[in-house]
Amino acid sequence: MIDLRGRTLRASFFHAPVCGEVEFLDDALIGIGHDGLIRHVVRQSDPAYEGLLGVAENEETLVTLPPDSVVLPGFVDLHVHAPQYAQLGQALDVPLEVWLDKYTFPLEARYADLAFARPRYTALVADLLANGTTTALYFATVDEAPTRLLADICLDQGQRALIGKVAMDDPDACPEYYRDASAAAAIDATRSLMDYIRGHKDNAAGRVLPVVTPRFIPSCTDEVLIGLGQLAAECDCHIQTHCSESDWAHHHGLVRFEQTDTASLDGFGLLTRKTVLAHANFITAADMTLIAARGGAVAHCPLSNAYFAGAVFPLRRAIEKGIHVGLGTDISGGPSASMFDAARLAVVASRLLESGVDADLPATARGWPGSRIDLATAFHLATAGGGAALDLPIGRFEVGRHFDAMLIDTVAETGGIRLFQPLAPLDLLEKIINTASRANIAAVWVDGTQVA
Amino acid sequence: MIDLRGRTLRASFFHAPVCGEVEFLDDALIGIGHDGLIRHVVRQSDPAYEGLLGVAENEETLVTLPPDSVVLPGFVDLHVHAPQYAQLGQALDVPLEVWLDKYTFPLEARYADLAFARPRYTALVADLLANGTTTALYFATVDEAPTRLLADICLDQGQRALIGKVAMDDPDACPEYYRDASAAAAIDATRSLMDYIRGHKDNAAGRVLPVVTPRFIPSCTDEVLIGLGQLAAECDCHIQTHCSESDWAHHHGLVRFEQTDTASLDGFGLLTRKTVLAHANFITAADMTLIAARGGAVAHCPLSNAYFAGAVFPLRRAIEKGIHVGLGTDISGGPSASMFDAARLAVVASRLLESGVDADLPATARGWPGSRIDLATAFHLATAGGGAALDLPIGRFEVGRHFDAMLIDTVAETGGIRLFQPLAPLDLLEKIINTASRANIAAVWVDGTQVA
Repeated sequence: MIDLRGRTLRASFFHAPVCGEVEFLDDALIGIGHDGLIRHVVRQSDPAYEGLLGVAENEETLVTLPPDSVVLPGFVDLHVHAPQYAQLGQALDVPLEVWLDKYTFPLEARYADLAFARPRYTALVADLLANGTTTALYFATVDEAPTRLLADICLDQGQRALIGKVAMDDPDACPEYYRDASAAAAIDATRSLMDYIRGHKDNAAGRVLPVVTPRFIPSCTDEVLIGLGQLAAECDCHIQTHCSESDWAHHHGLVRFEQTDTASLDGFGLLTRKTVLAHANFITAADMTLIAARGGAVAHCPLSNAYFAGAVFPLRRAIEKGIHVGLGTDISGGPSASMFDAARLAVVASRLLESGVDADLPATARGWPGSRIDLATAFHLATAGGGAALDLPIGRFEVGRHFDAMLIDTVAETGGIRLFQPLAPLDLLEKIINTASRANIAAVWVDGTQVA
Repeated sequence: MIDLRGRTLRASFFHAPVCGEVEFLDDALIGIGHDGLIRHVVRQSDPAYEGLLGVAENEETLVTLPPDSVVLPGFVDLHVHAPQYAQLGQALDVPLEVWLDKYTFPLEARYADLAFARPRYTALVADLLANGTTTALYFATVDEAPTRLLADICLDQGQRALIGKVAMDDPDACPEYYRDASAAAAIDATRSLMDYIRGHKDNAAGRVLPVVTPRFIPSCTDEVLIGLGQLAAECDCHIQTHCSESDWAHHHGLVRFEQTDTASLDGFGLLTRKTVLAHANFITAADMTLIAARGGAVAHCPLSNAYFAGAVFPLRRAIEKGIHVGLGTDISGGPSASMFDAARLAVVASRLLESGVDADLPATARGWPGSRIDLATAFHLATAGGGAALDLPIGRFEVGRHFDAMLIDTVAETGGIRLFQPLAPLDLLEKIINTASRANIAAVWVDGTQVA
């Protein structure tokens, strides 16, 4: 294990602070403070390079990585249902509203048993870290005790995490065996979890944060939505929910409130600079304007949208509207725990939206021209974009940000990357994003501490 | 290394002889001959089970696999451009016709240098085997010498392979530095390669087969298409080509011959029981009827279609028409060397075709109802379907077929599969297909010989 706190790292780095643009820091120095924050980012061409290198060598704080490796920012996964990891890769055969009742609510309910929850949550956090996910935004379950356990496990394993106890209190929509007893009970438990996380003895650095988490409009009463909006304002915390995910969910909101989910959430005070809306596949142009105005974010989940959405999220449009966008695996609506897979399918889905899918139509009538994103954009969304969505100083290598990163071994024998000759930096990054596997991730750091 | 020739394997097996159906052979016995062919398939419920088990135990030929493992048929990859492996995961930013000239022809041409070709082909075959691909249908390059080398390498590593020297002779369509000197030269080299492969000293078992391989109609003169059709008939060998892949390619054929690619290929004698048409995204209902009548096959390549097709192959329609269909990675038009990825994206693409992609349209106007396939179907296509497409006795565990298989370790620590409790067989298979990675493939056999 290589602890990088208080050290200077000499390596080559890719990051993408600006959407659609990639920066390659070839043989650069990144100095990391004892608090895990980045103190220096110095390129080889920088006059300060030799000086910093000399100091680090003299102080014996220099860590030099092998030439066949590069460092990427850790992934920011904006949408993970932690309890659903146990059914990853299963149960993708029915529509969303059936899937919840048939598979998902029964599974989530079992986490009330901490002996059931512990090995599953432990494996999830370990696997996400091993896959390079240094920050995850988690939906836990309705029950507070296992949600506290998830926070304990994230703190123990060193993952940056934002965790919500799921609020779902409508007796007409939620099963009797798995729902909040009342709106008040949901709000109280949300507040109690918040106190637990913020006051946790191992959380002085605030690496784990609480999140106000109404599941989605169809499972919540007006009362709980109002109360959670007030709580979020009072406590200035993050908010997450599902928004206009499928035709069914979207229309449910329209019928109930005679306006879109986005407008309804805004009305409840649930659309803020710290809000992440999962999916948002059917948001309107007006919704996009509203989200952008509030500074809210969308967690684009291409892996699960293929199964549950019924359409492709208009990603390019959302980016052009200035909305914060990041990517989510949506475990287990999406069948992969790897943000590489989310990035890859984000590109594929955008290409299919651009071209259209129906071979019976002429090419000109088939798709939405200009919808594609490239891999550089997907890389941005999976890292810096996710960081911006959460309004956290992560996802890029800049002074003052957390050193959350992964080391890619480009020549790992059992990995997916195959290099036969030197590549230009952008080609190398493209190859990494498209072909890297877990075996190529040689190390993962959060705040400079190695966590995988 | 476990050589299974002349042994009896005790394990649990999944296979899918019938499209859409999965068979689970729980704790079964498969006896394998010294020739690598399956001699017995005996379920535990079969009266012959105890007898065969006793004989194998007495003869000390029993091989018992661990309980956390299952055996799947090896994958049959119906479309691999072997030389393009060097650019896997790169160069996906331009349309097909530009991609060929800008990236692909220059790369393929370099394989004329055997010192360039050898490490790349060696790595490709090793990686495909490690990924569970026991049979591959390869496009090599225009040049015969490196194509012979590819055959040598497949024989050396023990992969079942069908290999074609690419014919592309039209001086108006192919670059001067990379094309056959004439139609006659293309045909002669195809015949010469055929003689080389069929007469190879290491190929007595016929594990490597030659393939007549006109690249696609746009790069071939009438003369070469006529000659290759005659050669295929004369030699009764496999045929592969691209068919109606993109709007551009499809229209090129329509303009030139005033009929579809399928009809043109049929006219040239290039559509037979041993033909594999790559892509076929824009084939018509009449094309489908013709392909089915000839017994031809389609290599569905969802990974590359996302980048180069402009639409989704109507897979369900083709299956319902009775066409043989299998899956191809289409290295490097597709950015993955794993048939797991091809199977996964086959499902995803079918779901997006079914639902449609355009969120601005009402759900009823968006897609093609009934287009989806499930994972059981994708598993069939990747194994037994590919075997049937090639008219080879592979892809399923039945007496008289080759024992080409992979061992899945469902509890490999660095693999993608996570099991927290026993699963019903179909759930287990679904989880394997969706989440297995290379690290879960503990062994691979071709004809009972371990090759990875």
